[in-house]
Amino acid sequence: MVCSRAMASKTPVGFIGLGNMGNPMAKNLVKHGYPVIAYDVFPEACKEFQDLGAQVTDSPADVAERADRIITMLPSSPNAVEVYTGANGILKKVKKGSLLIDSSTIDPAVSKELAKAVEKTGAVFMDAPVSGGVGAARAGNLTFMVGGVEQEFDAAKELLTCMGSNVVYCGEVGTGQAAKICNNMLLAISMIGTAEAMNLGIRLGLDPKLLAKILNMSSGRCWSSDTYNPVPGVMEGVPSANNYQGGFGTTLMAKDLGLAQISATNTKTPVPLGSQAHQIYRMMCAKGYALKDFSAVFQFLREEETL
Amino acid sequence: MVCSRAMASKTPVGFIGLGNMGNPMAKNLVKHGYPVIAYDVFPEACKEFQDLGAQVTDSPADVAERADRIITMLPSSPNAVEVYTGANGILKKVKKGSLLIDSSTIDPAVSKELAKAVEKTGAVFMDAPVSGGVGAARAGNLTFMVGGVEQEFDAAKELLTCMGSNVVYCGEVGTGQAAKICNNMLLAISMIGTAEAMNLGIRLGLDPKLLAKILNMSSGRCWSSDTYNPVPGVMEGVPSANNYQGGFGTTLMAKDLGLAQISATNTKTPVPLGSQAHQIYRMMCAKGYALKDFSAVFQFLREEETL
Amino acid sequence: MVCSRAMASKTPVGFIGLGNMGNPMAKNLVKHGYPVIAYDVFPEACKEFQDLGAQVTDSPADVAERADRIITMLPSSPNAVEVYTGANGILKKVKKGSLLIDSSTIDPAVSKELAKAVEKTGAVFMDAPVSGGVGAARAGNLTFMVGGVEQEFDAAKELLTCMGSNVVYCGEVGTGQAAKICNNMLLAISMIGTAEAMNLGIRLGLDPKLLAKILNMSSGRCWSSDTYNPVPGVMEGVPSANNYQGGFGTTLMAKDLGLAQISATNTKTPVPLGSQAHQIYRMMCAKGYALKDFSAVFQFLREEETL
Amino acid sequence: MVCSRAMASKTPVGFIGLGNMGNPMAKNLVKHGYPVIAYDVFPEACKEFQDLGAQVTDSPADVAERADRIITMLPSSPNAVEVYTGANGILKKVKKGSLLIDSSTIDPAVSKELAKAVEKTGAVFMDAPVSGGVGAARAGNLTFMVGGVEQEFDAAKELLTCMGSNVVYCGEVGTGQAAKICNNMLLAISMIGTAEAMNLGIRLGLDPKLLAKILNMSSGRCWSSDTYNPVPGVMEGVPSANNYQGGFGTTLMAKDLGLAQISATNTKTPVPLGSQAHQIYRMMCAKGYALKDFSAVFQFLREEETL
Repeated sequence: MVCSRAMASKTPVGFIGLGNMGNPMAKNLVKHGYPVIAYDVFPEACKEFQDLGAQVTDSPADVAERADRIITMLPSSPNAVEVYTGANGILKKVKKGSLLIDSSTIDPAVSKELAKAVEKTGAVFMDAPVSGGVGAARAGNLTFMVGGVEQEFDAAKELLTCMGSNVVYCGEVGTGQAAKICNNMLLAISMIGTAEAMNLGIRLGLDPKLLAKILNMSSGRCWSSDTYNPVPGVMEGVPSANNYQGGFGTTLMAKDLGLAQISATNTKTPVPLGSQAHQIYRMMCAKGYALKDFSAVFQFLREEETL
Repeated sequence: MVCSRAMASKTPVGFIGLGNMGNPMAKNLVKHGYPVIAYDVFPEACKEFQDLGAQVTDSPADVAERADRIITMLPSSPNAVEVYTGANGILKKVKKGSLLIDSSTIDPAVSKELAKAVEKTGAVFMDAPVSGGVGAARAGNLTFMVGGVEQEFDAAKELLTCMGSNVVYCGEVGTGQAAKICNNMLLAISMIGTAEAMNLGIRLGLDPKLLAKILNMSSGRCWSSDTYNPVPGVMEGVPSANNYQGGFGTTLMAKDLGLAQISATNTKTPVPLGSQAHQIYRMMCAKGYALKDFSAVFQFLREEETL
Repeated sequence: MVCSRAMASKTPVGFIGLGNMGNPMAKNLVKHGYPVIAYDVFPEACKEFQDLGAQVTDSPADVAERADRIITMLPSSPNAVEVYTGANGILKKVKKGSLLIDSSTIDPAVSKELAKAVEKTGAVFMDAPVSGGVGAARAGNLTFMVGGVEQEFDAAKELLTCMGSNVVYCGEVGTGQAAKICNNMLLAISMIGTAEAMNLGIRLGLDPKLLAKILNMSSGRCWSSDTYNPVPGVMEGVPSANNYQGGFGTTLMAKDLGLAQISATNTKTPVPLGSQAHQIYRMMCAKGYALKDFSAVFQFLREEETL
Repeated sequence: MVCSRAMASKTPVGFIGLGNMGNPMAKNLVKHGYPVIAYDVFPEACKEFQDLGAQVTDSPADVAERADRIITMLPSSPNAVEVYTGANGILKKVKKGSLLIDSSTIDPAVSKELAKAVEKTGAVFMDAPVSGGVGAARAGNLTFMVGGVEQEFDAAKELLTCMGSNVVYCGEVGTGQAAKICNNMLLAISMIGTAEAMNLGIRLGLDPKLLAKILNMSSGRCWSSDTYNPVPGVMEGVPSANNYQGGFGTTLMAKDLGLAQISATNTKTPVPLGSQAHQIYRMMCAKGYALKDFSAVFQFLREEETL
């Protein structure tokens, strides 16, 4: 397996952004024997890596000076732009031929701009956003959706397979983001749809478990109905069984739907339900559901007990 | 198997409504050896059954006089009300203990009203709408979703298994309709969502087949993406591969979404995406898509070539 | 003025439904010198009228026996159907030539059915729903939107002008309801739109009063922005200035939007925003806004302070 | 009047962007005696101004060299960014203390970025988008919504009153855009709402003129119902009376709604109807309505004659 090559042969890998997701991802690189050159805007986030033997640097530029393969995992487009093109950004010191992999979930148009800027330095940029949350990051079974020049895909895959079980090549730069955004938009729509259908059925007298069973053997079947059902009592081991704790937060879903919305607006693509799904998650954020799992939309749509 | 009992033991079964769906359903009863007592408001619809040895009658009341098990398959709520409670309706001559099974797709509230009216005559009413279209009706592998008194379910199942491969008990009267309506609402939402996600992805540079593959192994997976993909060229043997001919017509989907809407309004259940899906299928009907398969929403959302 | 004719000349008027709205309306009839024959399903509701000299009866049928002009003001379609066609309903004893005016807000299709049933008895039915709330009912300046045979309009107007300042003839039976439903649907849409535009503007740094002023002199101007602005602090004497108390309740708006939805579904009319407005008011009812004025949608859409 | 000062006292004014709107606006400056320094990316657009005595330059930078008051009127955010910060942009040669007024309709966030960049050069930036179309531009009665430092407002107003009859100070930089975006979002919502309400009323049997009259004296009243009614035959002199030609194009409305959407997404503001209105105008663009007036949404929602 590509990741089990002797440590001796492994050159250092830079990792920028050691937050909830970046932390376990970088640890998996360490576990696979890669010397890690780490940076995070919060110095405390780096300490743990120092103890693990990683080198900690003072800026993205410093990372770029010491490593010719760098992975970035940042919360939003502006952060990514700063880390790459800022005053102490990667591009200040990046070496020709370096491979820069951005696993942040950002606007595909921004990924394309970053790629252009990177290309001018003679380095290579790929976007590789992930699906699967913190749990999958820890377990090393994230899915990576990768966009960029196809010849560089194998090089990227070598690193990404240390952190994920599924690494999919999607096409030119930005298509990794596009794939993620499209998947999450469809996911949000199906989840809200499942919540509506389950809620309506319950009110019309159907038993929730029976209704889920019927949907799952019919054309209404979807991941949200058969794997992540939003109605408490229908399935075990999902956020709806645990008061919507854990899982994929409503704020994060709202963020991804915002990216889908911006991409759709920029490409003049009508997305009537995607757009409405975005609005519903925004209303949920405004009504106290920000930190709950996105399947809590079932709870949001239910009539309050007291009325 | 319950349907292969010797003909000798079979008492006649009434069948009212011999349209696109009722015709092949009734034929399957004949094939299984049931003497059929037929009625349709259009006399021509009955001729074929006369040739098959069925008795043809002049009114629903006449059917009720001669058969104590009756199946009805009608296009809408008012038709069902007329056939049961009209001047020459079933209830005028129904015998005590008769089993009346309505396979029409109608408002569950109307099913409940019919059940009450039937109950007063000492007969039994069950709602048993189907999923699967004309093809499934011919092949005898419809799915029946059945609502009514549980003790009568086996009696209903004996007949329904002659016409369907899947007969599911859903609960009290009206829950068969409820299950169908909820499934189709979720189906419409997922289909539009799939069309939006595929369209957006294509515009962002993704190959449609690859995008479908990614969705289908991720949390966006649904029946509309993995079994009935709306994008031409992604799958074979589906309406999108055949200019959206055949399949489940946009008008019929709009009708079912209208029933969902009425049920949701009556029970004060919020269904924001179901409601929007209804509107989109209404707009499609207004823009010339009435007779196309409901997956043509992909075509509806695409930018016109000429602009 | 038509209402100030000498009492001697006035024949009794029946009034059925003495709730929040019916009570002050019937009192205005009394004030104008009409002997009132009263009925309400809750006997307590009638007491007050006994003290005012009205005759109180035991059933709608009894009212019909004693009065040949009757006004009904009921909360919903099923109530109206019961009062007209029930076991002790008006139609049991209505006299030929009687004028029956229904001021309830109900499905126009139900108004048409009632009109047909009334016509068979030789009496005349008109629908005359009102706009303006309890305050306008007390002050006698409701608006009546009247549907029915045009020749009878003057006779209806004689009574309605005692309770309202504006009596508009809309066309055949059901068009009174239609006018009210269409107005309220547009009102709900404009109100939500105003709330969204004001909220967005405030977040983008605009002063709410200034923004309202700009909208009101531009093409965004509407009754909700210039007469009933939903943002606290912009106007005085409106519910938004009083914690959204009083005014037109969210539940009532949701009810009217439900009627619009049912009418649109039955006539296959696409109403994408009307439908979404309905869903938003349903969600508000589910989230504790049921009894607040419908302009509280501004509050519903705002981000919570604590997040 | 401020614009009638003797020509002798007038210093030159730069004007960049001489398209459909910019052309008549710049002409009005010339008419008021201002020497104009013109630039457009298409040289042909400048010729006409050469004949009118204006100086034509080779780049925005050249304009900035020769004029210390500049008005820009550009089709989109990227154009504005290029004209200000590009290789030959205004900022390359802008003089300290210059007044730069951008009348383009763009993302308020971009206006703020431009303002920051301008401020570094010691010049002043104001956003001043217009409402009113080409006709108002010709007639010199546009409305300007102005954002920027209040002390500079009078200086801006001096120029803007030559082109518009209404110049409103909205607040800090970006609030001019914000006001325009909010107004147009509410306008789009009310217009679609009016189209839906009129269409539903007509189908329920109401005469369109009568319905418009009722709405306009009730709480459904809005600019779209009383000044720009979308139903052919209701009003004269509006696009609906002329096959939806002229007026404010569907594409332009879709563009403004896209800006509203982006602003709402960036500020995490829920705009459920604004978002849906955006989608409806996108679908209209995709279905052949791109060049029709935005009130053609009435036509879009109607059932086709042939079905």
